Amino acid sequence: MFLSGNTFTQSHPNLILTAEGVAQIKSVTKLPELFSNSLHAIKEEVAIEMEKGIDVPIPKDMGGGYTHERHKLNYRIMHKAGALFQITDEVKYANYIKDMLMKYADLFPTLGIHPTKRSYATGKIFWQCLNDANWMVYTAQAYDCIYDFLSEKERTHLNTKLFRPYADFISIENPKFFNRVHNHSTWGIAGVGLLGLVMGDEVLIDRALNGLKITKDAKLEKDNDGGFIYDGDKPKAGFFAQLDYAFSPDGYYTEGPYYQRYAMTPFMIFAEALENARPEVKIYEYRQNLLLKAVYALLYQTDGNGAFFPINDAQKGMSYLSPSVISAVNIAYGRNQDPQLLTVARDQGEVLLDQNGFAIAKGLEENKQAPFFKKSIELRDGPDGNEGALGILRAGDAGDELSVVFKYTAQGLGHGHYDKLSYSYYDGKIEGLQDYGAARWVNIDQKAGGRYLKENTSWAKQTIAHNTIVVDRISHFNGEYDIAVDKHADPYFFDVTDKSSQVVSAKSSSAYPGVELQRTLILIEDELLVRPMLVDIFSASSDSTHEYELPFQYQENLLQTDVDYHLEDGLKVMGENHGYQHLWLEAKGSLKEQYNFSWIKDDHFFTLTALAAENDDLLFARLGANDPDFNLRRDALIIHKKPAAKNALFVNVIESHGVYSRVSEVPLNPYAQMESVDKIYHDDEYSIIQIKTKNAGAWSVMIANKSAAKDVNHKVLVGDTAYTWQGPFLIQKIE
Amino acid sequence: MFLSGNTFTQSHPNLILTAEGVAQIKSVTKLPELFSNSLHAIKEEVAIEMEKGIDVPIPKDMGGGYTHERHKLNYRIMHKAGALFQITDEVKYANYIKDMLMKYADLFPTLGIHPTKRSYATGKIFWQCLNDANWMVYTAQAYDCIYDFLSEKERTHLNTKLFRPYADFISIENPKFFNRVHNHSTWGIAGVGLLGLVMGDEVLIDRALNGLKITKDAKLEKDNDGGFIYDGDKPKAGFFAQLDYAFSPDGYYTEGPYYQRYAMTPFMIFAEALENARPEVKIYEYRQNLLLKAVYALLYQTDGNGAFFPINDAQKGMSYLSPSVISAVNIAYGRNQDPQLLTVARDQGEVLLDQNGFAIAKGLEENKQAPFFKKSIELRDGPDGNEGALGILRAGDAGDELSVVFKYTAQGLGHGHYDKLSYSYYDGKIEGLQDYGAARWVNIDQKAGGRYLKENTSWAKQTIAHNTIVVDRISHFNGEYDIAVDKHADPYFFDVTDKSSQVVSAKSSSAYPGVELQRTLILIEDELLVRPMLVDIFSASSDSTHEYELPFQYQENLLQTDVDYHLEDGLKVMGENHGYQHLWLEAKGSLKEQYNFSWIKDDHFFTLTALAAENDDLLFARLGANDPDFNLRRDALIIHKKPAAKNALFVNVIESHGVYSRVSEVPLNPYAQMESVDKIYHDDEYSIIQIKTKNAGAWSVMIANKSAAKDVNHKVLVGDTAYTWQGPFLIQKIE
Repeated sequence: MFLSGNTFTQSHPNLILTAEGVAQIKSVTKLPELFSNSLHAIKEEVAIEMEKGIDVPIPKDMGGGYTHERHKLNYRIMHKAGALFQITDEVKYANYIKDMLMKYADLFPTLGIHPTKRSYATGKIFWQCLNDANWMVYTAQAYDCIYDFLSEKERTHLNTKLFRPYADFISIENPKFFNRVHNHSTWGIAGVGLLGLVMGDEVLIDRALNGLKITKDAKLEKDNDGGFIYDGDKPKAGFFAQLDYAFSPDGYYTEGPYYQRYAMTPFMIFAEALENARPEVKIYEYRQNLLLKAVYALLYQTDGNGAFFPINDAQKGMSYLSPSVISAVNIAYGRNQDPQLLTVARDQGEVLLDQNGFAIAKGLEENKQAPFFKKSIELRDGPDGNEGALGILRAGDAGDELSVVFKYTAQGLGHGHYDKLSYSYYDGKIEGLQDYGAARWVNIDQKAGGRYLKENTSWAKQTIAHNTIVVDRISHFNGEYDIAVDKHADPYFFDVTDKSSQVVSAKSSSAYPGVELQRTLILIEDELLVRPMLVDIFSASSDSTHEYELPFQYQENLLQTDVDYHLEDGLKVMGENHGYQHLWLEAKGSLKEQYNFSWIKDDHFFTLTALAAENDDLLFARLGANDPDFNLRRDALIIHKKPAAKNALFVNVIESHGVYSRVSEVPLNPYAQMESVDKIYHDDEYSIIQIKTKNAGAWSVMIANKSAAKDVNHKVLVGDTAYTWQGPFLIQKIE
Repeated sequence: MFLSGNTFTQSHPNLILTAEGVAQIKSVTKLPELFSNSLHAIKEEVAIEMEKGIDVPIPKDMGGGYTHERHKLNYRIMHKAGALFQITDEVKYANYIKDMLMKYADLFPTLGIHPTKRSYATGKIFWQCLNDANWMVYTAQAYDCIYDFLSEKERTHLNTKLFRPYADFISIENPKFFNRVHNHSTWGIAGVGLLGLVMGDEVLIDRALNGLKITKDAKLEKDNDGGFIYDGDKPKAGFFAQLDYAFSPDGYYTEGPYYQRYAMTPFMIFAEALENARPEVKIYEYRQNLLLKAVYALLYQTDGNGAFFPINDAQKGMSYLSPSVISAVNIAYGRNQDPQLLTVARDQGEVLLDQNGFAIAKGLEENKQAPFFKKSIELRDGPDGNEGALGILRAGDAGDELSVVFKYTAQGLGHGHYDKLSYSYYDGKIEGLQDYGAARWVNIDQKAGGRYLKENTSWAKQTIAHNTIVVDRISHFNGEYDIAVDKHADPYFFDVTDKSSQVVSAKSSSAYPGVELQRTLILIEDELLVRPMLVDIFSASSDSTHEYELPFQYQENLLQTDVDYHLEDGLKVMGENHGYQHLWLEAKGSLKEQYNFSWIKDDHFFTLTALAAENDDLLFARLGANDPDFNLRRDALIIHKKPAAKNALFVNVIESHGVYSRVSEVPLNPYAQMESVDKIYHDDEYSIIQIKTKNAGAWSVMIANKSAAKDVNHKVLVGDTAYTWQGPFLIQKIE
C-alpha cells in the first residue's frame, strides 16, 4: 500500500496527544481524579530531572551503564515534558526539550556506531538499534508537542542534523534490524514512521508502512531470533507486514502474552498516530480490527491478578499494570469507549496524559465502568490462524473466574516451550496447577546478568516442567527447536455455547512421531457444585510400546491422598536429561483403579480425582536437583506413570473446592465433591467416561475421537447399554 | 479484693453496649460509614438466621459437628441480635433472643454432662467447658440487651432454670477448669462474671473476681496445659489472679501474641463490663493500666501486614484483623481515644455495634487517625517482669518498619519453643529471616484433625528451626519441657534512645549447662544507608569443647554468595534428632575470614555479611526430610558451622537493601552496601567489632560483656590503639 502524498499542513501535536485533545483537557475546570493524579506524578518526576539539568553524554555503556540509562531517561522525560507543555502551556517544558534536542543534534553527527559492537544491529546512541528505536518512538512524540513552538529554522536544523539521518541509520543502514517481522522491527518502524509523521516526511512514512525495498539477500533471510524477511518471494517488512505476520487473525501473538505485552507499545502508538494524522489509512480496520482484537486477546490472557499466563518464556508477575498495557488500554478506549476497559484502567491506576487518558479518567469519574468479563475464547495461532490455538475456558464471576489455559499452539518461535496440549489452571488469583514460566530473573544482575538462565533450557522449556504427557522421558520434539518450529497442535473442537459444559479438544501427532495424543477438557458448571469442575481426558496411542507419564505441577502442600506411598530413603535424581535431571524423587506409590490427591495452595483447596490402573505408579517429585546456582524454585509435582504399553488413557477431574482463612481459622469446603471416575468405553474412535460426585449428581461424557462433524450420529454399545449422540461430544448430567 | 455489695438498680444494657451508648448512636441523623457498614453486614447475617428459625438441639457432637456448630452460631447470633434490638428498637430481635433463651431454659435442666466426655472439663452444651464459657460470654451480652424487655417473671425463670445453674456448673462443679491461671479459666470467669453483672448476682460477681474458695487439693494443682492453681499457699484464681499472673507488667503474655490474641477477648469484655457496671473497681487502672498495655503489647508484636510474630506455637497469618483484636482495639479506643488506634481499626474494616465502635467510626469519618507507630520496645516476661523479655528493635516509617524480634523470654509454657536468643527479621511486610511458626493447619481436618502435627514437636519446636546457636546438634534444654519451663534468658541491656544505633543484648547460661551464650543486636540507621543495618554479635563460651552451629532461615532464593560451595550428590539427611532429621544437606562450602550471602524473598533483596574463619563451613540445608505426610514447607536455611572448640564468636550484618518490581522489571539497589566485618578484639570481657560499608562509612562497636552498669569506664588496648568507653556499649561511626 502506498499513500497518496497529500502533504497538507497539519496542526501539531497530532500523533498521540492531539491539538483537539489538548483543548478538551483544558476545557474542564476540574480535572478528573485519575488524570489529575497522573499529571501530578509526572510533573514531580519531570521537575526532579529538570532540576538536575540536561546531560547528553557520549555513548559508551551497555544496558545498566550510565550513558545507556541516561539516554533512556532523557527520552522518557522529553516525552513527558512534551505533554506537560501542551497541557500547562508552561514554556519551561518546551525549552527543556528544545535544549536537549539541540544537544542531540550536536552529538549525533559526531557518532560512529556504538563502541560496544555487541548486537546483531549495533546502534548509535545505544548498544543496539532496538534502544535507538525506543528513543525515536518517545522523542518523536516530544518533538510533535513542541513542533509549533520551534522556529522553521530550528526544525530544519533538527530534521537535517538529527532526525532524518538517525531514521535512515536504523532503517537503510540496518535492514536486518528494520526489514523483517519481529518486535525489534516494529519498534524501528514505529520510530521511523512517527518521525515521518511529525516532519511530514513522506519518504519516511512510506518506508515505515511498506519497508525498505531491498533485493533478496541470503544473509538477511533469517536473524538470530527467528524473524524472516521473505515469505517466498514476498518481502515481509514494514508496518503492514508486521500486522500481517506478527498476529493471528484473533490477535494472538505467537510468542505468548509476556512478549505481546512488550510488542504492543509500538503497534498501538504508531497506529494511533496514523489514525490521527492519516485517518484515510483506516489502520484500526486493517485485518478486521486486528489491533483492537490484539488488545483484548492480551487482556484475556491474564489471571485474577491481571498477570499474564506465563506460557513459553515469561517471568511470572508481569501483568496488565505494565506501562505498555496502560498505553494499549488507553488507546483502545479512545477508539471504542468500552466500559469494561475502564475497570482495567482503574486497576492500572494511571493514565496517559492525552485525550484517551482523559476520557478514561472522566469515564471512571462518571462511574461508567463495567466489570471486565474475561470470556472463554479460542485464540487461533499463526498469521492465517491455522497453526493451532490457545483455548481458554472460564467460568465464574468477573474478577473471580476459574480459568483453564489449554495450549495447543504453534511453537512460539525461539521463546517457545515444548509443551503441546498442556494446560494451567487458576482459581481467581490462585495458581492451582502452574506453568513454571521462565527460569530467569529479568534484569537482576546477580542471576546471570538478568538473562535467561541455563535452567531455562534444561528445565523450564522441557515438557516435564508442564502439565502434559511425556513419552519415554523425552521432551516433545526431542526438545529441539529446529524440529518444533514449524509444528503446531491441531484444534479438534471448541464449544463454549453451553455454559453448563464448556468443551475443548485438541490433538498432536507431531510432538512424538508415531504417537497420537488427544486431550479433551470439559469445564462443568452446576448449581450443586461449589466451583466448576474440570474433566481432563488425555489419550495416547501408538503402534509401538512406550512409557507414558503425566505430571501435575501443584507446587506445594500435599493435603491428603488415598495413595499408599512410601518415602524414598535419601533423595535421588530422577534422570539425566529432558528436565528429569532437576527432579528429586521424594516418594512413590502404587495405584489401583482410582486415586485422589488434594493440595492446599495459597489457602485454597484443590483435589484431583483420577482414573488409574493396577501397576500404575504415582511419583512424588520435587524440583531442585542439579541446580548449582540455586536458580530453581523447590516446587512439587506428581507424576502419574503408566507401565510400558502402546496406548494410555488418563482421566482426571480437578476441583477447586474451598478456601481457608488464617484469620478466622475456618476452612470452607475442605473436602472435594468427587466420588468416582469410570471409564465406560475407550478406543481410538470413542471415549465414554462417567464421573460421580458425592452430593452433586453424576455426568457422562461421550467423545467421538475421529470426527468433529456436528451432524454425524454416533452409537457405542457397552454391554446392554447403547450410548448414542450427535456431533463430536455429548456431556450429560445423568443423576 | 471483695466488692461492697451495693446492689443498686442499674439500667440495661450496661455491659459492653450501654444505654448511654445506644442514645449516642441514635442521636445522629447519619451513621458514620464504618459503623453503618458493620450494622448492615450484621443485619444481613442475623436476617438469614432468623429466617431459618430457631434450633436448640440436644448436645451430641464434638467441634465441627452439627450440634456444636449450631449452638456456637446460636450465641453469636443472639449477641448480634441484642445489639440490633437496642440500636433499631425492632422487637423481632428481642423476641428472637427471648424465644431462644426459653428453649435453652427448657433444655438445660434435662442435661447431664456432654456425652462425648473427651475433655478434662466436659461441658453441658458443648464437649468442653471452654465452649460453654464462650456461650456465656456472648449470651450474657444478648441477655443484657433484652433484660428490660423481659418481664420480671421471665427473668426469674431464666435466671433460676438456666443462667445461675449453668454458671455454677462451669465454676463450682469444674474447679479444674475455673480455678486456675489459664486462658480457659479467663473465659469461664468472664462468662460467670458477665452473667453476674446482668443478673445483679453478687455471688457470681465475687466468684468471678476472686475465684472459688476451695481447699488445696493435690489433684488440681496442675492441669494438662500447665496452668497452676496455687502459688505457694496462695490460690491463683479469679479475674484478679488472671491479671496478676497471665501478663507481665508490660502486658506481655508468656505464650506469645498468637495465644494472647485469643485470650484478650474475655479479658477485655469482662473488664469493660466491670468498668461500665462497677466503675468503682477501676479495673483499667489495675496493675498500672495493665489491660491497655496488653492491647498495645499485642499490636506491637505484628509485622507490616498486622500479622503476629509467630514465636512459639503460632500459625502464620493470624493478625490484628482477628475479631478478638477488633474487640480489644474498640474497647481500648473507647478508653483512651488514641488516634493511632483508628489506623488499626481502619485496617480491620469493621467495628463493634456499641459506643466504642461508634466512636471509632466517627473518629475515622472526622479524619482523626494518626499512623500507628510501632515503637522499639522491650516487653518483659513473667508475672513480675523478671523472667526474660522480648526485645523489638524497629526503624523506619509507620507501616514500613524494619523489625527485629529478639526472643530472650521465658519458655512460654506448653506452647513454647526451644529457641533462646533467637530473632526473626522483617522488612515491612516481608519476612527476611523467619521464625518457622507452628507445624499445624488449625482446624483443617485432613492434617491430623487440625491439631498440632507431630512435626511441630520434631521440627518447629526444635532449636535448629530458629535463628540461634545450636550446640552439638542438641536443642536448648535438650528439647525437654520440664527442664525448660522454669528457665528464661537474661536481659543484659536494651537502649533505643539513640535512633542512629538501637541496641539490645541478652544472655543465656541455662539453654546449655556449661555454655554461656550472649547475643547483642544493633540496628544502625544512617542517611547513607538504604535501609537500617542489623549487626548481630553472638558469642558462646565454655570450659569444654563443642560444635557450634548458627542457622539463618532465609526460606528461599539464594541470589548470590561468595562462598565456594559444592552441591551434594543426592540428598542425605543431616541427623537423627533435634530437628536435623528433617533437613536435607543440599550443598556445603568452606569459609575463609569472611563471607556474604544474598537472597531474594518476595522480591526483596537481603544480604548477610559475616565474620568467619578458616575451617568454618557453610551448610546449605533444605527442610523436608522424614516428612511422611508432607507436613513441612520446603524452606531453605544456611548453617554456619564452627569446628569443635571451647568458644565461638559469630558476627553477622544483615541488610535489607532493595526491591524488585515484576511489572517494571527494574531491581532497585540489588547489591548490598557492606564491605567488611572485622573482629578487633574479643574475649569474655570485651568485644570490639568494626564494620565497613562500600559507600556509607564504617562503624566500630564496643561491648562490655561483664558489666551493664552505665557509669563504668572501659579500656581495651589493641596493639597501639586504646579503645575507651563508658557503660556497656559504644557504637561509633568512624568514617
